[in-house]
Formats: sequence, C-alpha cells, structure tokens
Amino acid sequence: MSTRTKVVDALVSTDYGKEITVKGWVRSHRSSKAVDFIALNDGSTIKNIQVVVDPAKMNEEDLKSITTGACIRATGLLVESQGKGQTCEVQAEEIEIYGLCPSDYPMQKKGQSFEYMRQYAHMRLRTNTFGAVFRIRHNMAIAIHKYFHEHGFYYFNSPLITASDCEGAGEMFQVTTLDLDRVAKSGKVEYDKDFFGKKTNLTVSGQLEGELGATALGAIYTFGPTFRAENSNTPRHLAEFWMIEPEVAFMDKKELMDLEEDFIKYCVQWALDNCKDDLAFLNQMIDKSLLQTLESVVKEDFVRLTYTEGIEILQQAVKDGHKFEFPISGWGMDLASEHERYLVEEHFKRPVIMTDYPAEIKSFYMKKNPDGKTMQGTDVLFPRIGEIIGGSVREESYEKLMSEIERRGMREQTYDWYLDTRKYGSCPHAGFGLGFERLILFVTGMQNIRDVIPFPRTPKNAEF
Amino acid sequence: MSTRTKVVDALVSTDYGKEITVKGWVRSHRSSKAVDFIALNDGSTIKNIQVVVDPAKMNEEDLKSITTGACIRATGLLVESQGKGQTCEVQAEEIEIYGLCPSDYPMQKKGQSFEYMRQYAHMRLRTNTFGAVFRIRHNMAIAIHKYFHEHGFYYFNSPLITASDCEGAGEMFQVTTLDLDRVAKSGKVEYDKDFFGKKTNLTVSGQLEGELGATALGAIYTFGPTFRAENSNTPRHLAEFWMIEPEVAFMDKKELMDLEEDFIKYCVQWALDNCKDDLAFLNQMIDKSLLQTLESVVKEDFVRLTYTEGIEILQQAVKDGHKFEFPISGWGMDLASEHERYLVEEHFKRPVIMTDYPAEIKSFYMKKNPDGKTMQGTDVLFPRIGEIIGGSVREESYEKLMSEIERRGMREQTYDWYLDTRKYGSCPHAGFGLGFERLILFVTGMQNIRDVIPFPRTPKNAEF
Repeated sequence: MSTRTKVVDALVSTDYGKEITVKGWVRSHRSSKAVDFIALNDGSTIKNIQVVVDPAKMNEEDLKSITTGACIRATGLLVESQGKGQTCEVQAEEIEIYGLCPSDYPMQKKGQSFEYMRQYAHMRLRTNTFGAVFRIRHNMAIAIHKYFHEHGFYYFNSPLITASDCEGAGEMFQVTTLDLDRVAKSGKVEYDKDFFGKKTNLTVSGQLEGELGATALGAIYTFGPTFRAENSNTPRHLAEFWMIEPEVAFMDKKELMDLEEDFIKYCVQWALDNCKDDLAFLNQMIDKSLLQTLESVVKEDFVRLTYTEGIEILQQAVKDGHKFEFPISGWGMDLASEHERYLVEEHFKRPVIMTDYPAEIKSFYMKKNPDGKTMQGTDVLFPRIGEIIGGSVREESYEKLMSEIERRGMREQTYDWYLDTRKYGSCPHAGFGLGFERLILFVTGMQNIRDVIPFPRTPKNAEF
Repeated sequence: MSTRTKVVDALVSTDYGKEITVKGWVRSHRSSKAVDFIALNDGSTIKNIQVVVDPAKMNEEDLKSITTGACIRATGLLVESQGKGQTCEVQAEEIEIYGLCPSDYPMQKKGQSFEYMRQYAHMRLRTNTFGAVFRIRHNMAIAIHKYFHEHGFYYFNSPLITASDCEGAGEMFQVTTLDLDRVAKSGKVEYDKDFFGKKTNLTVSGQLEGELGATALGAIYTFGPTFRAENSNTPRHLAEFWMIEPEVAFMDKKELMDLEEDFIKYCVQWALDNCKDDLAFLNQMIDKSLLQTLESVVKEDFVRLTYTEGIEILQQAVKDGHKFEFPISGWGMDLASEHERYLVEEHFKRPVIMTDYPAEIKSFYMKKNPDGKTMQGTDVLFPRIGEIIGGSVREESYEKLMSEIERRGMREQTYDWYLDTRKYGSCPHAGFGLGFERLILFVTGMQNIRDVIPFPRTPKNAEF
C-alpha cells in the first residue's frame, strides 16, 4: 500500500498511472452493474475525489455496506477522469473499511436546516458548508497572526480568570471552586476559601492587560476567548467568543485608522487568495453576493466620518422619508446596527470608519478631544455586520483618567495596576478590538454566529 | 519631526546623517558637563539605542527629570557611534517628554529577585529579562501556527466552558451566573436558573472536541487556555495555562512520533533563528548552557524507548547505586519527573520518546496494544522539563471504548457525542498535547512557570 495522499493533493496531481492511497469519508456511493462510484472527502478540501470500483473485484456485501458517512481507505491507480468537473480519479484495486456508518447518521440527508445541524454540532463538521466555514476560520486566524507578526506586534496572552472588570463591557461569569451545595447548606459564602481567595470572573476583554503589554513591548495583540453572561438569544451574540485586541504605543488616531483599514483588508484579501474553493461554494449556496462584497471591501477606500457628520446624514435620511425602527433622536444617541448599516450599505456603499463619538456613550479609558465633548474613537462599520471593529486612542494622562474614574463612580483601587501605566513613564497609545466571529460571519456569508464557531455557548446551551 | 523609527530598525540602519525619531522608555541616563547619554528601549528589541544630548541645548530641569522609566521622544541625526557595543546612535536635536517616572517606580533598581518582580507583573514587562521572555513566547506561538498551517492542519477552537470532563485530567473550576449570596440565603442551588441550565466548568483539555474536528477536517490543532483547579504551589503548575493539542485522522504510532519530533525541533530551531539577541541575553544572565541545550535538541535524533525498557534502565541505575527520591517500584508504576530526567539527562543525554505505557496508568481513550496490557502512548521527555508532550493513538473501536468507559465506571451518557465519532464512520487517529508554558520554560531557560506567562494564576493569586 502506498503512503496516504491527501485529497487536496491528489486532485491536482497529474501522475496518471501511479498507485496512490486515499483515505476519507464517503459523501456518496452510486452503484450500477458495471461500476461503482464513491465520492470521498477527507476534510483537506471541499472537493471530493471519485473512487471507481469494479464490483466484480470486491465482496458484494462489503461494497454495499459502504454508505454515506463510512470511513474507508482506497488504493489504486490515479487516472485521468472521463467525467465532468474533475480532472482525475482513483481506480480502486483495494478498499479497506475503517468504520461503517449506520443509517441513523444525523448528517445522512442533504439540505437539513442549520438549526437542525446545530443540534449535531459534533457531526455537522463533516458537511460541505461547515467544512468550508471552519477551513476559512482557520485561514483567518493564520492571516491575523501573520499580519501582526510581520508588522512587529507581539502575541500577548492576557488572563482569562480575573478579579477586575473592564468597566461596562458586560455581565460576567463567576469562576469558583466553592462547593455550591455546601454554600447552600452552610448559608455562608467564604471567599477566603475560594481558590483565588476572592471573587473572580471570566474576562470580558483583555484590553487593559494588553495596554500593560503595549507600554512595555511597544505593540502587542491578544487573540483569545472572551465571555459575556448576557441573556441574548440573537444570531449575533455568543456567551463565549474570540477577540483580537491589538494595542500600540505611540500611535495616534490617524495611524490607528490606517492600521484598522490595512489589517482588515489584509484578512479579507487572504481569504480571497487562499480560500477560493470554499468561498466559491459559499457564494453559490449561502450568499450569491459574497465574493462581490469581499472584493469591493479590499478595493475601496473606507470612508472616514465623524459621528457628528453621521448623525447629520441619518437625520437627512429621515427627512427624505427613510424609516428606521429605532428613531434618530439626535446628537448624543448611541447608533443601532440598522443606523450603521444604512450609512455603509445605502448611503456610502462602502465601509465607514466612524470617529469622535460623544464621550458619554463610550468607555472611561478613551482619550477626549480638546472640545471636552467627543473622544478619539475609531469604529469600523461593515456591510451586513455593522460595527466590526471598536477602537480608540487611550487617555494617557494620569490626572484625566483618575478624574474620569472618579466621575463615573468606579472603584479606583481595582484599577491601581492599570493606572500605574500612566504613573510611570506614561505614553500615548491606541488600540482596537475585533470580534473574531463577526469577521468570520462577514467572510463566509453565514447568517448566524452560532454557525461560525465549532461549539457555540449560548443561554441554556453548553453541549459537547 | 520625522516619522517614528523603531529601535530594532534604527540599530541596523546605516543611513548616517539622516534625521530620525525614536520613541521609548529610558533604561539609563548618564550625565556629565559636556554630554548626556540616554539609553532608550521601545520593546522592539532587547537592545537600547543611545541618545546623545548636548545639555547646552536643553532646559536643565527638563533634562534632569528624564530618569529611568520615563517615556520620551528623541529626534536627531543618526550617526555612527564612537562607543563600544553599538554601531550607531542618535544625536538629539529635540526631546519631548511623554511621561516622567517618579522615584517609587518598582523596576527602578536592577537585580531584583523574580519573586519581587512577580508582585509587579504589570511592570516587569519593561525589564530586559521579561522583554526577552515575552518576545520569545510570541515567536513560539508564531512557529506553532506556521508549522501546523504549512502541514495542512486547521486551527480549531474547542470550547472553554463545558459540561463534560476529559476524564481524570484534573480538578475543575465551576462557571456560574448564580448569585452565591442568594444561594447561601435561599439554601438551594437551582441549576435550572444558571446561565446554561446546568452545572458547567472550565475545560481541562480540548482533546475530545479536537477529535471531533480531526475526524471531519482530517487534521486540526487547538491552541488555547486550559484550566486546573489544583492546589499546587510549585514552579511547574499554573491554574490557567495554554495548551496546544493537534489531532490527526489516519495517523499511526510511528507517524505520531515523527510528528512530535519534527514539530518540537521546528519550534526550537525557530527560536534559534529568530530570537538570537534575546537568547544570547538569557544564555548570559539565566542559564549559561541554554544555547547549547537548544542546539543539541535540534541536532540529535530523539531516543525511542518503550516504557518497559525505561523501567529496566531505571532498575539498573538503582542497582548501580543511583538514588531517586521516589522509589522504582517496578513495572506498572507512574514515572516521576526525576525518573524521566534521569533517562534524558544522564542515561541517554538526548530527548526520549517513551512509548507503550501500562494501560492502567493512562486515559480511557488511548488505544491498547494487542498484549492487552500496554497502550500506544508516545510521550516526549525533555531535559530540565521531563514530560513536555503527552501523546497517543486513540481507540477507534466503539465496542472497546464503551467497555473501557464501563470498566472505569465513567458516566457513559456524558460521552455520547464523543462516542458518535466511533459510531459513524470511525477512523484510526492520533494526537498529542503540549503545555505551551513548558515549551517556553525550556526555550528561555527560566526556572519558574510563573515567569513565562504575563499574569500567572495560582492558588490565592489572580492579580491584574
């Protein structure tokens, strides 16, 4: 038996007449008297390789048992294919069955709903759609690491378990080793007996720790899991998701916008260059405008627009008869996703970097403009997604940061370590956050965020 | 003012006479009547650039205020250096102070103990040693992603919050949104009111989910945080650490050993090629044999040894008068770190891949040999570290896996989804786990695992 050839490699081979061995899962098996065709997939590509079997050469029962989902090895000659849509196929000399697949296989039928498949998240990985999604997800992670590495950023692992709270970012999960039954029985919560000796949570953002990294190593990025205990049952929310948070010393607002635009275009271009087959499939099956949207994002300059200008455009739209679900109440309001998407999809027809938001609707650590009203935020708004990146210049003045913490009634001592960056050799710096699954949604054309992470965690759901 | 040049780039520039701008933190400031020397570091390299200041050109008080830890910009001509150990320096025309550094700066003094610096984990990032460690940590992450990407593995994000338990891997942290004070008051633990509707924990391993990925996508790797709620206050244990867990369909024991050896040599070679300055520093300051150890690991073939042969060697060592703290009780015993290190450091003087352990001391999912006594494990033992990789072929037979789960008294229904991989198109496969911080310990020569992760989580410690 020859050593295994991956399907992705076999399909581009022109070594006709050579014996090869392929291994994988059966996607379909068609039988006739003279010949059997088995479409085999091994996950290395969305494409199957056709295995041609002479039924006379194989035990009839064995051949019949090779149904959709079964796992086999096929060894035989690689030959030029006569069939359409494929260049080569394997003329099987020998087939070994690794694992049969009973008929209650949940992915047996084609065209099941995504909702159905979510119940079998462990098996949906074997379908065309989810194979494509997770190969693209991999490629996006590689693009991210590659981009930052080549630009001199260091990968920085901020902690997951934390005793602090990135103010206002959302509700938190508690982490504990206390025995809850004992807590109930004794009527006491003894944090001194908890693992960390105090109340701890799962992080909602690695940014504050990322700033510690950036003000030492110059430029860092985090890329890790983040948690929100929000009871949101929507196609856009997960309780556990992955975030990318770069943070850069000595960066100003203009440079931050340049970084955001360059970075996200690099990722989308990487998908176009490296995920052609998977994108072609998704473009055909999921969203017919997918490729066009991706290509336009890398080609066009992003619009750079202040919040104030944005509000004016939205107010004009209302005057012109556009109906929004959430009203445009005027300057100072928080934009809803439909407002962001109106600007991007209808008004500009391009991604928008919106800047200089009212300080009141944004976080305490963001740098205020001299007007005292607005801050140096730089959020990127995308078609279909709305906000995909949230960024800002950070306030580097110890005094200003302290007075903002006091003004907001935050517990100052919790942020002692964070304030130290402003106390000792403070430096101007900036950064942004990107929700990884939002990027995957955009690049794959999928509609529901639960379908772009292998095992989604949502209210009442922590299966697998 | 010219745009900023990173110190790492300035130091290799030969554009003498050109105006450049560098920004960073002051590592030292020496004054004399005629000239001031400021050593500036911006985290892009362990090396400082020398900024030469003519005190006549600057306000005396301002110049005096630029102490160790202060953050400044210096603009001036890049000139060839007269001093030793550097090729160029900046003749400052203009200096801007971003942030002064008061004299209570905790990293003021040189030569503080690592224990002292751990209390200031947020500030230790600005020292030479920790700069080197975290640049190397970044490079190891990049090497890992690059290796797997180039070998056709897909990065696969296994869930952090889980309702299952990778049997026997260790004690777990509970994740909850129940209000503990209310639990204490009401005397009831109502899991139906918890976020996920049941008891959930932080994962101790992504392997089982990784197997779901591998048996669909062919080859995957996880690289993410993992948690153990073990009350171990040792230089080798963390409650929160990062794991790399590749899993490959159709891989046998020989191929698994080849993968382990090739992979880890690639990572070490990457450090030797890409972290020269940082390694030279650590070789000088932390471990004089560091470079030699790293070089020998990439050069030598790893010894491949069965557990049974290993026990015989250890028994012979005892006969020959070697004293172990933990006795060699004979076949069936679990090896302690000192036993592993004896084999690696004293007997073979090379890394060892130990195979075919007694099935009883290993996990339920590992494939047994035909002898019924041993299993197809492949652990890599390293100098200084002991076990750095734990790997095995996985049992692919549904019946054998079920009977092992029953024999061990595990709750079968918890593993339903895992067993489905064996029920539907089961395939031979194998994988391993590598503790990321163990690799960083090895590559940096650091002694304590708390010094190779930015913000260590250990019993009673979740600062920052």
